[in-house]
Amino acid sequence: MPRLPSFARLLAALERLPGVGPKSARRLAHYLLAAPGSEAAELLGALAAAREKTIPCSVCHALTEEDPCDVCSDPGRDLRLLAVVEEPADVEVLEKTHEFRGRYHVLGGALAPLRGIGPDELHVEDLLARVAKGEGETKVEEVLLATNPNVEGESTALYLARRLKPLGVKVTRLALGLPVGAALEFADEVTLSRAVSNRREL
Amino acid sequence: MPRLPSFARLLAALERLPGVGPKSARRLAHYLLAAPGSEAAELLGALAAAREKTIPCSVCHALTEEDPCDVCSDPGRDLRLLAVVEEPADVEVLEKTHEFRGRYHVLGGALAPLRGIGPDELHVEDLLARVAKGEGETKVEEVLLATNPNVEGESTALYLARRLKPLGVKVTRLALGLPVGAALEFADEVTLSRAVSNRREL
Repeated sequence: MPRLPSFARLLAALERLPGVGPKSARRLAHYLLAAPGSEAAELLGALAAAREKTIPCSVCHALTEEDPCDVCSDPGRDLRLLAVVEEPADVEVLEKTHEFRGRYHVLGGALAPLRGIGPDELHVEDLLARVAKGEGETKVEEVLLATNPNVEGESTALYLARRLKPLGVKVTRLALGLPVGAALEFADEVTLSRAVSNRREL
Repeated sequence: MPRLPSFARLLAALERLPGVGPKSARRLAHYLLAAPGSEAAELLGALAAAREKTIPCSVCHALTEEDPCDVCSDPGRDLRLLAVVEEPADVEVLEKTHEFRGRYHVLGGALAPLRGIGPDELHVEDLLARVAKGEGETKVEEVLLATNPNVEGESTALYLARRLKPLGVKVTRLALGLPVGAALEFADEVTLSRAVSNRREL
């Protein structure tokens, strides 16, 4: 076996990525070594730039390069409607459906007591304050709980529904129709679009 | 849709990687943005170091950090036996079987006339010279053609067999038993091990 400590180090770094096993890590490593210098430099530069420039929106916690984000500063959005999602990536997939015209609130995950993630680890108090205070001059009338349709996402939705209802807001949930047990991030746009338009009250 | 030019640039760079589609690129991008600074720095550093330190071995063209590579400078290898592979990654998988104790010759690809890859684009002349001259004081007695068991790999093997036989060397091929149409790189070690021990003469 050739001794290649720098190659082994690259393999180890690649294997830490989600969805990358030992074989795809090796494939990626060989590709990255053989790629032209410009392509490798572009990947390195793109990653460094993205990490430097993207920040969480101070209003909704989605990823943005300018604070507040495009959605929060768009005068055309329906301020009476707020969608609660787990991760910044979920904002992106919901936006792609063009079905939702309200604003977002990114929790930063889902409740997972066994892994020590309670309401204090998520942007929950922040959400309650937003709903209680209203968006600018506008009262929030409906909160759509768009957490993932799996155990953690469902229990997060139930928890949030219990906390939100005393504020006199309508609380809705994405329609089932999403494949149960899956992650929002991987749903196709048509299914997700239908899940938004068929949302049900909790 | 939030305007995120740096994120879009990272996505584009990730989508160029082999085996990474739009959805896994998005997943990787979000992971890389959310990862701790140390982890991102390690990935960037590992890639830069691997690209800087690994060079092709001047004897066999495998990847190495010192020239000649470990295999070519190992006095315990059987110099009468030479395995011809397409890519540096293939040396690694063959080494893992512990079934092959000779040296290697990396072609740098397979013949693909439609994509303009002929013998001159590969390390073919180089291979013929090695076999004609012998390894050090030792005559090369057998060349094992370990190209991929797909159309391009098979025709490369047939071409090389025709060029090598006039040199009075025994030319062998990996046993079929490898799933036809697949790539060497993804074979499991047991199958590949059997393919080495059952190699047949061409």
